Amino acid sequence: MSEISSLGEFGLIDRLTANMPMVNASTILGVGDDAAILHHPADMEQLVTTDLLLENVHFDLTYVPLKHLGYKSAVVNFSDIYAMNGTPRQITVSLGISRRFTVEHIEALYAGIRMACEDYGVDIVGGDTSASNQGLVISITCIGEAPRDRIVKRSGAKTTDIICVSGDLGAAYMGLQLLEREKVASAGRKDFEPDFAGKEYILERQLKPRARRDIIEALAKADILPTAMMDISDGLSSELLHICKASGVGCRVYEDRIPIDYQTAIMAEEINMNLVTAALNGGEDYELLFTVPLTMHDKVKALDNVRVIGYIAKANEGCAMVTRDNTEITLRAQGWNPLAEQTAEQDN
Amino acid sequence: MSEISSLGEFGLIDRLTANMPMVNASTILGVGDDAAILHHPADMEQLVTTDLLLENVHFDLTYVPLKHLGYKSAVVNFSDIYAMNGTPRQITVSLGISRRFTVEHIEALYAGIRMACEDYGVDIVGGDTSASNQGLVISITCIGEAPRDRIVKRSGAKTTDIICVSGDLGAAYMGLQLLEREKVASAGRKDFEPDFAGKEYILERQLKPRARRDIIEALAKADILPTAMMDISDGLSSELLHICKASGVGCRVYEDRIPIDYQTAIMAEEINMNLVTAALNGGEDYELLFTVPLTMHDKVKALDNVRVIGYIAKANEGCAMVTRDNTEITLRAQGWNPLAEQTAEQDN
Repeated sequence: MSEISSLGEFGLIDRLTANMPMVNASTILGVGDDAAILHHPADMEQLVTTDLLLENVHFDLTYVPLKHLGYKSAVVNFSDIYAMNGTPRQITVSLGISRRFTVEHIEALYAGIRMACEDYGVDIVGGDTSASNQGLVISITCIGEAPRDRIVKRSGAKTTDIICVSGDLGAAYMGLQLLEREKVASAGRKDFEPDFAGKEYILERQLKPRARRDIIEALAKADILPTAMMDISDGLSSELLHICKASGVGCRVYEDRIPIDYQTAIMAEEINMNLVTAALNGGEDYELLFTVPLTMHDKVKALDNVRVIGYIAKANEGCAMVTRDNTEITLRAQGWNPLAEQTAEQDN
Repeated sequence: MSEISSLGEFGLIDRLTANMPMVNASTILGVGDDAAILHHPADMEQLVTTDLLLENVHFDLTYVPLKHLGYKSAVVNFSDIYAMNGTPRQITVSLGISRRFTVEHIEALYAGIRMACEDYGVDIVGGDTSASNQGLVISITCIGEAPRDRIVKRSGAKTTDIICVSGDLGAAYMGLQLLEREKVASAGRKDFEPDFAGKEYILERQLKPRARRDIIEALAKADILPTAMMDISDGLSSELLHICKASGVGCRVYEDRIPIDYQTAIMAEEINMNLVTAALNGGEDYELLFTVPLTMHDKVKALDNVRVIGYIAKANEGCAMVTRDNTEITLRAQGWNPLAEQTAEQDN
């Protein structure tokens, strides 16, 4: 294992970014100067998003492998670009590295970031690397592009639009509960073998999420332009409220329409948690939530991995979930609030 | 004083970004969606740079006011864009905030960032805000623009080019020494009044650096396009070596040509430090180091606040400083290495 101080900042950056061909025509110059140089086509807008991930706030290295962490750190940014109906093209990667990390640790983290970039066709064009005397700090900024008339904001939802969601919800949160449970069970036991049998899906949803490029491509192919869209990082309730607030509308979603995987259901039962609460408020699913005009209903129904879960109502009707027994429950943002009291329980 | 948890992430962001008009035509949509939307003109390249600043690694809140810290955090990014001969246009601001900060603290930090943006005509278009259970974390990414044929990289210096530097060097480092000295002197003394008389300049250089937009504008006005350029953040020696390595050349700089302010000299004498070492290796001056063809010598000499300090040599002649007694001393990068052993002494 190699001490990072033996390489220094520039040596470490050289090592991490070696043999990294740029794949996008819009990347003119990558790592190595005061700034990267990009040139996005004249008919494209640029999209910019950024995420800050802090050790023991956003991730726990007790059970998150560094390579997975790197992968996820990049993918959550790509997800924000897809949520605008764009294509991610470049990222910058800033790392604050505490002394307990070796060069090999950081190479594992970076290998995950690079793998995500390869999977999604994104170039690493810059960054900053520093010592941290706190924990690991990861700050990634992603730049993407989209034609102006294809960009989808949060603010375009109209009354009578239908509300759609991709994939299924609550799985990443249940994966986190599983990891936390096994962490507690393993405390102080060297020979401990965590029991993940039959829970591979929720584990992968937590540790190696994907950004829904496939849905963006399917929508384009089906000639469907959503009226509003965002990705579900803080939970369905929270994101629905964002769209409704930005669009000046209300909504109704149906409890029995919310897509949930059976592994999510089994885990919720094992830990005695309300399943719908998990699906509404569990974060980190990185599924796409979007609205389309009612006239698109048949087109949307024909798509794989997309479920219609409700409709956009008038603002004065508020935002509510209609339960199986036809009761209306007002939606509240109970998702992860990273600025609330910082207790382990609230870490999602 | 208000607890940050009382506002939550979105409430805090709303408060920080209220009444923030966008000033650049290239900013289509700022804070508030999954990503910002930009549209840089077709005849411009985009420049992207990022800096990560960590408490007790890059700054010490014992003596750095939060507003100054915010100002400096933004300006160091602008400096990187000017160093490419570009114009900064947008930034994203990510903050990791530990529990000891109140809303008013973060407003002071943000006020500094906003003031810097106003001074340099830059829009804040996004960011991320999170709890930190470590210290304060500031990650800023800046996007700028420049016409392709005006961008200046590190790699264009040619043999016989002359080497120029703006302003003066070593002052920010001496300002830091002053602050450290007064911090030590004040330890445990409630009635302590720091003695900054006659040292206002070096203090300002450390606490409120400026990016040299004026030099970029003066170069353009004089029709001088540097062959290579970068900003001096890690020290003159380190940056000269970067330019020489990237350009495949060597260099000679003259000790008696290195610009040093008299306050810098007085402080160096007070703490018994070699003045030239401070000027060569002290970081954070954010002056511009650039090379121009020898034919531009008279044009450059006519500029205010620019000094010719040496010339570009052949690669096999190496990189050296010529002392007052005509000895050649090989240049070494002894500037701040943020990944070396983390002792307080090496914090610049």
